[in-house]
Amino acid sequence: MANEVNKIAHPFDKTRLEVLLNRRFFYAPAFEIYGGVAGLYDYGPPGSSLQANVIAEWRKHFIIEDHMLELDTTIMTPASVFETSGHVARFADWMVKDTKTGDVLRADHLVKSVLEARLAGDREVRGLAAQPQKEDEKKKKKKVKSVAVQLADEKVKEYETILAQLDNYSGLELGELCRKYDIRNPDTDNEVGEPQQFNLMFASSIGPTGQHPGYLRPETAQGHFLNFSRLLEFNNGRIPFASAQIGRSFRNEISPRAGLLRVREFTMGEIEHFVDPADKRHERFHEVRHIVLSLLDRHVQVQGSTELTRMTIGEAVDKGLVANETLGYFLARINLFLINIGINPKRLRFRQHMANEMAHYATDCWDAEIENASGWTECVGCADRAAYDLSVHSARTGHPLVVRQALKEPIITEKEVPEFNKKVLGKALGRDAGLVQKIVGEMDEAQLLELKGELVQGSAKLYADGKEIALTSEHLSIERKTFKQSIREFTPNVIEPSFGFGRILYTLLEHSFWCREQDVERGVLSLPPVVAPTKVLIVPLSAKEEFEPLVQEVSTKLRKAGIFSRVDDSNTSIGKRYARNDELGTPFGVTLDFASVQNRTMTLRERDTTNQLIGPIDDVIGVVTALVQGSMNWAEACQRLAVYDGVQAVD
Amino acid sequence: MANEVNKIAHPFDKTRLEVLLNRRFFYAPAFEIYGGVAGLYDYGPPGSSLQANVIAEWRKHFIIEDHMLELDTTIMTPASVFETSGHVARFADWMVKDTKTGDVLRADHLVKSVLEARLAGDREVRGLAAQPQKEDEKKKKKKVKSVAVQLADEKVKEYETILAQLDNYSGLELGELCRKYDIRNPDTDNEVGEPQQFNLMFASSIGPTGQHPGYLRPETAQGHFLNFSRLLEFNNGRIPFASAQIGRSFRNEISPRAGLLRVREFTMGEIEHFVDPADKRHERFHEVRHIVLSLLDRHVQVQGSTELTRMTIGEAVDKGLVANETLGYFLARINLFLINIGINPKRLRFRQHMANEMAHYATDCWDAEIENASGWTECVGCADRAAYDLSVHSARTGHPLVVRQALKEPIITEKEVPEFNKKVLGKALGRDAGLVQKIVGEMDEAQLLELKGELVQGSAKLYADGKEIALTSEHLSIERKTFKQSIREFTPNVIEPSFGFGRILYTLLEHSFWCREQDVERGVLSLPPVVAPTKVLIVPLSAKEEFEPLVQEVSTKLRKAGIFSRVDDSNTSIGKRYARNDELGTPFGVTLDFASVQNRTMTLRERDTTNQLIGPIDDVIGVVTALVQGSMNWAEACQRLAVYDGVQAVD
Repeated sequence: MANEVNKIAHPFDKTRLEVLLNRRFFYAPAFEIYGGVAGLYDYGPPGSSLQANVIAEWRKHFIIEDHMLELDTTIMTPASVFETSGHVARFADWMVKDTKTGDVLRADHLVKSVLEARLAGDREVRGLAAQPQKEDEKKKKKKVKSVAVQLADEKVKEYETILAQLDNYSGLELGELCRKYDIRNPDTDNEVGEPQQFNLMFASSIGPTGQHPGYLRPETAQGHFLNFSRLLEFNNGRIPFASAQIGRSFRNEISPRAGLLRVREFTMGEIEHFVDPADKRHERFHEVRHIVLSLLDRHVQVQGSTELTRMTIGEAVDKGLVANETLGYFLARINLFLINIGINPKRLRFRQHMANEMAHYATDCWDAEIENASGWTECVGCADRAAYDLSVHSARTGHPLVVRQALKEPIITEKEVPEFNKKVLGKALGRDAGLVQKIVGEMDEAQLLELKGELVQGSAKLYADGKEIALTSEHLSIERKTFKQSIREFTPNVIEPSFGFGRILYTLLEHSFWCREQDVERGVLSLPPVVAPTKVLIVPLSAKEEFEPLVQEVSTKLRKAGIFSRVDDSNTSIGKRYARNDELGTPFGVTLDFASVQNRTMTLRERDTTNQLIGPIDDVIGVVTALVQGSMNWAEACQRLAVYDGVQAVD
Repeated sequence: MANEVNKIAHPFDKTRLEVLLNRRFFYAPAFEIYGGVAGLYDYGPPGSSLQANVIAEWRKHFIIEDHMLELDTTIMTPASVFETSGHVARFADWMVKDTKTGDVLRADHLVKSVLEARLAGDREVRGLAAQPQKEDEKKKKKKVKSVAVQLADEKVKEYETILAQLDNYSGLELGELCRKYDIRNPDTDNEVGEPQQFNLMFASSIGPTGQHPGYLRPETAQGHFLNFSRLLEFNNGRIPFASAQIGRSFRNEISPRAGLLRVREFTMGEIEHFVDPADKRHERFHEVRHIVLSLLDRHVQVQGSTELTRMTIGEAVDKGLVANETLGYFLARINLFLINIGINPKRLRFRQHMANEMAHYATDCWDAEIENASGWTECVGCADRAAYDLSVHSARTGHPLVVRQALKEPIITEKEVPEFNKKVLGKALGRDAGLVQKIVGEMDEAQLLELKGELVQGSAKLYADGKEIALTSEHLSIERKTFKQSIREFTPNVIEPSFGFGRILYTLLEHSFWCREQDVERGVLSLPPVVAPTKVLIVPLSAKEEFEPLVQEVSTKLRKAGIFSRVDDSNTSIGKRYARNDELGTPFGVTLDFASVQNRTMTLRERDTTNQLIGPIDDVIGVVTALVQGSMNWAEACQRLAVYDGVQAVD
């Protein structure tokens, strides 16, 4: 029964996908009727539902599964917080200005697009144009005019090396690259000036007096850190634990042009897992140890390569490629999540940041990158922020952001301790008494032992303020004492998985899109039921009143089963209605016709194969519920219901 | 079995509630360790869950139930949009400055707090202090020093009248009130200056050049209006339909001091119901017609009264008190929603806006107000924005935001139409030919008929540019023609229910809070299961390993039943763990002890009564699932399971 479905009969065409997404209002440029604003997008009904479903799945997969503490903190943030966190000084990109028009370009993107265009031109001359990257190159050529000029072999190598480590360059180096390779503004062919830093935070001011500067957060993370003490208390003082937050963040990108992949306002999900720096094991690591990931570590990249290593996360942690179990646990869980919602595992990799590339707060970082028509795009970052944030906020505010842990075994230590006979000391030395206490108090173990020896032998001398001060055992004694430490106090480290839902959503749409073999106009989005905006389409033959009771019945029964359905009784053929819903990614459809009214039967259609089954209404509802919930697959459904031969419908 | 629970043994104490909410981290001042920022709050784990549950219920009650089209639009908005919508010019509050310190106060709040303090002082002298408002007054006295001075009877009446229509005053009038009644800054006793407008939108700028001013949206509504054409198309061109959006909005309040009731950043839910201005009936109005609401219309308020009228929404619409069915439908649905999540129906009213009080875009507006310790607070607004927004955006952008409807019956009209013989006209009149066409083209029916008469009689004269122009039927003729109009084009009206989730959340917490009769320290939040952060608490007798398999089993079975539970195996007595969860509003608890291990039984505790039942583990899971889903009440549960006499537990 199962038709062969050829999803790659037509090569992926980004333009077709974009037309579909726009027509079906998955998303659209915000303020479109005002001419739009670069980097701002609105989600329409199917886009909103898809996003809500991805987020609901995220909440289940991460928050519920690992009992994380959810937070909802504010976007508007006083400047002092981001001064402390380092964002005011360092959360910036390098921009260059066209020396004649003053147009602003992001420096690294300029280098990338120009060199890639030259390489494309070179490949064209060498007759290598028909690469898998073809679609990709075509798009870019629209932006950066590439001339079919052959490059010297060593030049090709140089360009490729630069591109492989593009994220590693400083502003100074980007400026040098522009001069050395004569990189100009492709729109005007003018030279560009020296790279300047541009802070990516949106600024505002809080309150009526204008005296309280604020920023819109560029990440939700600070809201977790500032509430650390409250979270720790909520968790009964225990560590490790994770907080999680889903919310909007803002980055004032220099010149965003990449659709949902680079936007100025976005919904993110962030987890801050607080862990003992001395013990970054994870109690559930054994559950994921066997999972195989595609890794691209920093050593490989620095050598100018992008070759992937397939390895279990267990092995990667054992070998020290991934720094610790907790980081490894999250990489594996991220991998599971992305595949679960429909990302193609073959187009997913984990790339380690190079040294200069890491955010100022990170000590190690792996990005989950998803391949799409624009190349490999970071969709999830997974950074070890160490104790950076908690330490700096604690230092600035004086509020201790630490864990105090009762030690199972108290730590016993012995050390030399000076005991002053303050009365005698004061009488003998007057104002110098305080000076003596200060000097002795700051002595280390060895110095104290030496002084102790001298005192035991009768007298000792100190030199201070150019004076010699004589001391005897009447002034002070030095004793060996035992100390018992039963509380350990430490600043936790933070492992932070950080998800950009817009990027995940867009790459998911690319991975889901294909066209029917027989007709390139018939686009399909093969979204998995778990994230599809609508799970079941109810299609009455027409909007006639006689179908209304059945439509209501099926709709109510599905709602009670927790399945989100929509009715399409629009005045067009059933085929057209199904085609529209293929574009909306609706995985299943049920049709109610005259036979349904007579016999209480209903057909069930599967989106990808377009195969149809038939059975009593309640059986079909049972089967479609199981299909949506993932407890049954289509092959099993074919065992439960009869094949529909198309005879029944009375048109 | 059912204990009598006396929830009002102790009068409501706002301070106790606030201590509880703070200790359990429902919410806390944002940036607390930096000293906090007025009007910004973070939600901790129970607050986040409560909010998420309220929003999930909202989505079900409104979006799913009425098939609304969900949107997710951006917060950052270019200035031009709010210039058009009128927010740049008019979305402002009146502020006054202390003439000596320069402190900024919101003018209407100043008048309110000072007059209320004077009335409180008056009541004290008259021995009327022990009013139901007592708690309320106490709080206010902390802020505004009230002196126990008796007022003249007519002064009391004047103050009460001012307070009843406080929202109706212009800035000029507020300034006059301050002078007439000697209203001063209560903190300093200094006079205040003239009221000035302060725009409540946070300003920022978009992009690297600083040339594109933007604002953070103060409401989500504009995002709906700007996407109207796309939404209409998504809805197959049909009207009425509603769009809905849940998201963050921002208002730079002048001096917010009222906790969650007045904040600078908040999550809102907004519905824009687009309707034919000629037909504001609602097809489901009959379903809600019988629902009784407490109404406070504008006529009553203008008379200085706040007396409520209890009336079915059907009667209110029939009488014209509520303008139309669609507005009435939403008022009734709002009423249902609020009661469903736990708002006390006796402390809920619908107040109509007075003429001067309405937002600049509204033609009618009713607020759902919820009573709390600070008085009656607007939590939901329900405004008829008419065609205001769509019209102004359409005029500004030139993009038509209209509905085009095929008329069932074409409209046939006849009218006089001039037909020019352009050749003859041009030859005869030269440059005046165009002028003639213009003048005749602008004539109304009567003028055309007159001209037609003259032409039929031989000749006519026009006067233009001080010249007389002679015309004959060779130049033009005027004919009666028939026109058929088969498309009707109109700008829809918008009915907008707009929900502030923070205010709903806070008033819900007030309505849910009480203390155990025997001990005022034992606070309880009687949140309904549908919104409670955790539905079931699983309490093993201790964290010992022998309970672990059962804990896992119960936890997994509840998760499969869709019930969110938490395990509390902290190292403290079961009683203390239950008390903690009473404060978190957890409606049910199950206890696993040695008897559970031996007999596979489990006890079930109900939060409000603290009554306990016992039964086989799977039976208890079945009962608690039904209780949480609302398909069983506690009395029925008592029929299904045995009363627990406390003998079984082996401590």
